[in-house]
Amino acid sequence: MKIYKLNATDGAARTGEVATPHGIIRTPAFMPVGTQATVKGMHPEAVRETGADVVLGNTYHLMLRPGAERVAALGGLHKFMNWPHVILTDSGGFQVMSLSAMRKIDENAVTFRSHIDGSTHVLTPERAIEIQTLLGSDIVMQLDECVRLPAERAEVEKAMRLSLRWAERCQRAFAPVRDGRSLFAIVQGGDDVALREESARELNAMDFPGYAIGGLAVGEPQEVMLRMLEVVAPLLPADKPRYLMGVGTPDDLLKAVARGIDMFDCVMPTRNGRHGLAFSRFGPINLKNARHADDPRPFDEESPCAAARTYSRAYLHHLTKTNEMLGAILLTTINIAYYQELMAGARAAIAAKAFASFADGVAAGWAAGDLPTR
Amino acid sequence: MKIYKLNATDGAARTGEVATPHGIIRTPAFMPVGTQATVKGMHPEAVRETGADVVLGNTYHLMLRPGAERVAALGGLHKFMNWPHVILTDSGGFQVMSLSAMRKIDENAVTFRSHIDGSTHVLTPERAIEIQTLLGSDIVMQLDECVRLPAERAEVEKAMRLSLRWAERCQRAFAPVRDGRSLFAIVQGGDDVALREESARELNAMDFPGYAIGGLAVGEPQEVMLRMLEVVAPLLPADKPRYLMGVGTPDDLLKAVARGIDMFDCVMPTRNGRHGLAFSRFGPINLKNARHADDPRPFDEESPCAAARTYSRAYLHHLTKTNEMLGAILLTTINIAYYQELMAGARAAIAAKAFASFADGVAAGWAAGDLPTR
Ligand SMILES: [Zn+2]
Ligand SMILES: [Zn+2]
Repeated sequence: MKIYKLNATDGAARTGEVATPHGIIRTPAFMPVGTQATVKGMHPEAVRETGADVVLGNTYHLMLRPGAERVAALGGLHKFMNWPHVILTDSGGFQVMSLSAMRKIDENAVTFRSHIDGSTHVLTPERAIEIQTLLGSDIVMQLDECVRLPAERAEVEKAMRLSLRWAERCQRAFAPVRDGRSLFAIVQGGDDVALREESARELNAMDFPGYAIGGLAVGEPQEVMLRMLEVVAPLLPADKPRYLMGVGTPDDLLKAVARGIDMFDCVMPTRNGRHGLAFSRFGPINLKNARHADDPRPFDEESPCAAARTYSRAYLHHLTKTNEMLGAILLTTINIAYYQELMAGARAAIAAKAFASFADGVAAGWAAGDLPTR
Repeated sequence: MKIYKLNATDGAARTGEVATPHGIIRTPAFMPVGTQATVKGMHPEAVRETGADVVLGNTYHLMLRPGAERVAALGGLHKFMNWPHVILTDSGGFQVMSLSAMRKIDENAVTFRSHIDGSTHVLTPERAIEIQTLLGSDIVMQLDECVRLPAERAEVEKAMRLSLRWAERCQRAFAPVRDGRSLFAIVQGGDDVALREESARELNAMDFPGYAIGGLAVGEPQEVMLRMLEVVAPLLPADKPRYLMGVGTPDDLLKAVARGIDMFDCVMPTRNGRHGLAFSRFGPINLKNARHADDPRPFDEESPCAAARTYSRAYLHHLTKTNEMLGAILLTTINIAYYQELMAGARAAIAAKAFASFADGVAAGWAAGDLPTR
């Protein structure tokens, strides 16, 4: 099954389209994170208005609350959260590592205690596929083991090989339930070039419709992450989408696009928005800073996002200082819109064979910093 | 200055229009509370869409953050919060009583410590007018002293008389800055008929453009509140609006409308919405209750509010159980919309001389309770 249409390249950067049962993902694409069946603080219609083609749901959270069987009985995740567009779900592996109270991994499964009520759960590769199928995800991720960096090579290698075996089991479990959806494999191997190469080659040979690169942005410097992308991306097939999981800052995104990545997800725009930080063409701006208190100017009068153009910086400052929900709502919206604007700019620039100058221009805007104080 | 146009009566119930510099308030009217220059959890456009003509701002909160002079420098409260419609501000007196860390009232002023940073502030009647003028309120409230019930008659009487003298001072301070806006006086007198009558007669003689009834819904039973309305409303001029401050439940509202009240404000729909409770034609519904967990039905398929029609009860349950912001957002919207629907129904019923049967029908719906469990 071919789901990726490559429209243009500019160096290693690519622009294209990923086909799914709920529509097209225009790539490079940023996927807002809707952990618990909601992108925190936003109506689904507002998420769509920012230009998002796809949101990510978290299997770990959704299997605990409200439960995959319940979501299926209610008609699936798209209907449940009123998002009729594309949904990608992760497999739960990463969140088990980062959130659960206790976990134990063996050949068969990861066993963990819920961070909510301490109840014990067993997640096998087959159950990870079943859960995502019950949710009705358009793009399903294999269960993998993700190691926090820095780590011993032996530990990274062991996790990578287990992830390869689990990729096979996920592929077998997914085949009978595919129904137009796609299963992505996840390249692991930490910061070790040889392990990354082995993982990419093995998974490539197994012929998945798309590939993710996992286990990055887990503590290593940006240059290590970029080096791994330079190793892995060329080993992945040009006619399949490439998804860098859990990344990242606007700068991470542009540098990863330059290295051939098509898809991203990250909690940064939503989480930071809830804490008063806005991403913008001026770079990151802390609206809690007192210098905004008397500033009548909009956050960014040139933004395509109405929230960025409508409200004064003084008002956004007031809302963040007083912990008003509307502050979190508006900054989350501004951030998701900025990430989408960045990806739309990247797509247009790649199509025009001008990605490098686009990225340089964006970086120059960040380096110039915020508007001068009035 | 005449600001009220009486369109129809049905018994003591009235429907009409209050004219202000930022538009008409259709009465009976419910004013959502925008304490800190935002109706918690709602875009101002969404507040408007529920049918609200007016929101209330709190002088106490706004004088502390962001400060009245700052709001004025930024173009006034309407512009600051992106609400180009009517704004009524209270005078701060009630919140000083209920929120400030320390307070002292003498003839001249109330002196209090901020609940935020402990700083000391002095609020005179003149300063209360100045603050509300700086904010740019369309309807300005006199500074009053509000006593929590039950209370000694002497204390209630003292507060009522001080409020009368402060009404005069507010009137004098307001005259030169009026500029199309209106100053409302506040009838006090606790649960004492004679004091309420005296307060209403004295204020009536002073010829304010509108009258509020304060110091109710402060701990007394509903029947005491209604009895006070029956005493006070007939003493207020028929050609001026009557505003019952800080009230109340949907039932309070209909019973007060039946007694001639035109305007209301209350934090109930917003505060309860943040805690999983929705008001509806079925009565109050706790979405946190497990009986909603598997319910695919919308909250109320007949509601004029899209949020009530779009999302399943199961989803609202999930959002409230997981403390997701979207749960607070949707239930706040549903609640404000229900209050507006109730007031719109009351206006139409009064115009049709059918208010009693309207109110009976609504009460019968509440008594019947929620949809049967599926
Ligand atoms: Zn991230
Ligand atoms: Zn109230």
